Amino acid sequence: MNKGIFITFEGNDGSGKTTQILLLSEYLRQKGLEVVTLREPGGTAIGEKIREILLDNRNQGMYPVTEMLLYAASRAQLVSSVIKPELEKNRAVICDRFLDSSLAYQGEGRGLGAENVWAVNRLAVDGCLPDITFFMDLDADASMARLVAKGEGTDRIESEEMDFHRRVYSGYIKLARQYPDRIKRIDVNRNPQEVFAEIRGYMDKLLEKAKG
Amino acid sequence: MNKGIFITFEGNDGSGKTTQILLLSEYLRQKGLEVVTLREPGGTAIGEKIREILLDNRNQGMYPVTEMLLYAASRAQLVSSVIKPELEKNRAVICDRFLDSSLAYQGEGRGLGAENVWAVNRLAVDGCLPDITFFMDLDADASMARLVAKGEGTDRIESEEMDFHRRVYSGYIKLARQYPDRIKRIDVNRNPQEVFAEIRGYMDKLLEKAKG
Repeated sequence: MNKGIFITFEGNDGSGKTTQILLLSEYLRQKGLEVVTLREPGGTAIGEKIREILLDNRNQGMYPVTEMLLYAASRAQLVSSVIKPELEKNRAVICDRFLDSSLAYQGEGRGLGAENVWAVNRLAVDGCLPDITFFMDLDADASMARLVAKGEGTDRIESEEMDFHRRVYSGYIKLARQYPDRIKRIDVNRNPQEVFAEIRGYMDKLLEKAKG
Repeated sequence: MNKGIFITFEGNDGSGKTTQILLLSEYLRQKGLEVVTLREPGGTAIGEKIREILLDNRNQGMYPVTEMLLYAASRAQLVSSVIKPELEKNRAVICDRFLDSSLAYQGEGRGLGAENVWAVNRLAVDGCLPDITFFMDLDADASMARLVAKGEGTDRIESEEMDFHRRVYSGYIKLARQYPDRIKRIDVNRNPQEVFAEIRGYMDKLLEKAKG
């Protein structure tokens, strides 16, 4: 391989992204790859400050366009200062949420539309798109049930109304259909090891292809 | 008049925008108008938090695209939550910097180009453009000399290299030529009262036109 691999995890909250990212990064390290794990929004000093604004429950008056631009700003910083340089060094970059989140949350959830999300994000991603994306398929109602069961406080986005989360979920379903080669839809209603077995299968195939 | 008036002040730092905004808002109030003065970036609770990130000298690693998106985010919030509602109430809204600043600072200064600035800002301004803009014409070298003379600390943007400020200035000159009806180029190398006399002249004409 002459460059790294860019892997993203997507899906509604509570779908088990964190656990799978941990399992995948261990797996890839065992295979001898250097792995960088990141999250959005955030992942850089500037991005983490933007994250605070985005998730702060006091910022209820935030308009959808403001929100979309702040996510894009955090993303631009992450792409330029971390993702691109790490991929240049042949590393595996695993990102918890990326552009698809904006398409699902702001494009569908907030109703801004894919075209507007792209107009604002084109420069932010600057051609840097994931090689593979795991869509952790958990519908909005199950997602909320898991968040409630966890019993932790919710941030500004998590505490949105159910209809918002349903639109986000249908946004993901649409994206998975639109980009079937890149986006792998993963049934998460199994135990984490079963879920990971499927993810590992996709990764092995991708690594084989990259080698050949 | 069936809607308010949207007035913006532009120009390199130290060009006397603050003083003129004060004189103009007093003048318009004496004429019986309700006046709202704002500044960019900022002007809203969320915008002021974005301002902190933008101007903080510790954020030297900020990429131009991140910067452009953060300014646009602050602007989107200001337009939707303050400027549009105030104009609806027939008020005079005076803003210290607006879209032209992004065209001059990010478009020219950072070299991102007007097309990219527009792509990102179209939704942020949402059709809300100034009725009149006063470009306080002070070249970059004079601007820096005034900042130094003031002896205050400089923020992240002010402390950019001279060539950056020269590009910003030439960006403003370009904009003034491109939009001669909207942008009034004001020679600031006079005392503040003389400067204001010219601004007042333009305002009186605009108010006459709006009445008729």
